[in-house]
Amino acid sequence: MSEIKILSETDLRAAVSLNKDAVACIENAFHLLATKDVVMPPILSFDVPDHNGEVDVKTAYVPGIESFALKVSLGFFDNPMMGLPSLNGLMTLFDAKTGIVKALLLDNGYLTDIRTAAAGAVAAKHLSRENSKTAGILGSGMQARLQLEALSLVRDIKTAVIWGRDEKKLAECASDCTSRLGIEVKTGSITDVMAQADIVVTTTPSRKPLITADMIRPGQHITAMGSDTPFKAELAPCVIPAATLFVCDRLSQSIKLGELRSAIEAGTVTNTDSFAELGPVIAGQKQGRRSADDITVCDLTGTGVQDTAIATFAEAQSLAAKAGSTIQS
Amino acid sequence: MSEIKILSETDLRAAVSLNKDAVACIENAFHLLATKDVVMPPILSFDVPDHNGEVDVKTAYVPGIESFALKVSLGFFDNPMMGLPSLNGLMTLFDAKTGIVKALLLDNGYLTDIRTAAAGAVAAKHLSRENSKTAGILGSGMQARLQLEALSLVRDIKTAVIWGRDEKKLAECASDCTSRLGIEVKTGSITDVMAQADIVVTTTPSRKPLITADMIRPGQHITAMGSDTPFKAELAPCVIPAATLFVCDRLSQSIKLGELRSAIEAGTVTNTDSFAELGPVIAGQKQGRRSADDITVCDLTGTGVQDTAIATFAEAQSLAAKAGSTIQS
Repeated sequence: MSEIKILSETDLRAAVSLNKDAVACIENAFHLLATKDVVMPPILSFDVPDHNGEVDVKTAYVPGIESFALKVSLGFFDNPMMGLPSLNGLMTLFDAKTGIVKALLLDNGYLTDIRTAAAGAVAAKHLSRENSKTAGILGSGMQARLQLEALSLVRDIKTAVIWGRDEKKLAECASDCTSRLGIEVKTGSITDVMAQADIVVTTTPSRKPLITADMIRPGQHITAMGSDTPFKAELAPCVIPAATLFVCDRLSQSIKLGELRSAIEAGTVTNTDSFAELGPVIAGQKQGRRSADDITVCDLTGTGVQDTAIATFAEAQSLAAKAGSTIQS
Repeated sequence: MSEIKILSETDLRAAVSLNKDAVACIENAFHLLATKDVVMPPILSFDVPDHNGEVDVKTAYVPGIESFALKVSLGFFDNPMMGLPSLNGLMTLFDAKTGIVKALLLDNGYLTDIRTAAAGAVAAKHLSRENSKTAGILGSGMQARLQLEALSLVRDIKTAVIWGRDEKKLAECASDCTSRLGIEVKTGSITDVMAQADIVVTTTPSRKPLITADMIRPGQHITAMGSDTPFKAELAPCVIPAATLFVCDRLSQSIKLGELRSAIEAGTVTNTDSFAELGPVIAGQKQGRRSADDITVCDLTGTGVQDTAIATFAEAQSLAAKAGSTIQS
């Protein structure tokens, strides 16, 4: 019998925001992934074809973090027809020394949104030019907003250009970002975004590449965070070979679910041995950007270390705020 | 925002017992596994070597069952030194149509105990001789007690012989079983068990085989449920080829974690194509015992369909009993 803390989405939204602390938490997670004996098993993933559903389970034990999280993410894409949200999810936090359940984080995917955006900030901090001023975003959903906000935590972003498939959603996204961040946010074509932005973040579920090799420019940094299944791709197969440097959060996942999958399939990438992961770049074990003219590309598929890090952080923040309720197991 | 039911171990113990309903629930799960498009991904399993811990995650979507469970089982074997139990675990129950969290089952492994014992009953019901009267159990822990109780739900068990490594625990187990089941329960050697029992269940974490081919007798049924990791084995490699019929809960798991692993490693089994799973035997798609002289062996490694079935059953029973508390997600 032990006490389990229950944290609702409301508790977690009050406790954790997309800010420098959250970015530092995720940066530390990637640093630990590179420097400690992290145990991060492959993602458990399955479909529920009868109901157009997908379930993903991620976890990681990270020495140096006192708890580990097991995160379940669910996408049931017929839900909107029933007036229900498509996306859903929760995390369970275990004491890393004893395996005893410490907390249930009923975040409905909120912490995933935060740790995903924070990883975008970490990638930009370590790979983009320090004097980057213009951000470009492909997509107009929640991650479009959060990734732009995340960039502004690590670079002095003055303007942004956003592209999205749906004109109405795009205009709303631009207007939201302008009022939230107090910077000029324009809308434009993908070509406009690529022509103007110092840092580009792709946040779409696209199955057809959006960025082609002829669009990328010296000095640019691109983070592709949309592809997380074996049929999505945001970068054309020639983009990775055309970049000076390719980095990803987890090589095995990028090969299976991320941008490397389509490049390998197309034959434009045949050997992945030279590619670095983000952790070793942060830890100084692998070289990041070398010059202002380098074109850097980072593929983020989302990792269990981020979930363990953000869940542990959220529980500590909630404890400090005396948030949540307690049940007896 | 939706309501989530929280069920404690106390609630679940009140709601679910090892009885004919629980056995029927697990029998139905295996029947559905054979006859429906069940989605049961490989077990997500990892070690936490720093703290002598193991974590296993099982799940299955089963058409015909209205929810699906995700079960986390944890074993942290240094816990007893801190006065804490080694084993721990919980299940999360999701609506199968929408993926929305319905209930958290904080069972600390209780439901796993029940569904594991119930599978032993199902195996005996479909593979042992109907006139089996003497049960034999190897091991003296919780599953030794439960497996014997489970057998008595499906066969008219009059006596039992139990063997265990630890004399004191063995005597306690025999005495507990006698008073609980009201049958004669004797202790003896492994040879005694094998010489007397019509149905034998092995429930140990042994890494060295306990039963050898020369011990098995015509008409006997043996269920091996102890091995669930790639270094355990309760049956000597010659036992499976010496049996008339070998059945397992899940072939892929038996090959990786169960009794087939050591037999394949030893070379006594080279082809697993002819082996049946329990589901098709229950469903009448594969032949079970043909005669009173057959020697039948069933290897149980534990499956996600059992977890989905027992968790859904437990939630329904708890709802009927108005047990548990409710929180807002």
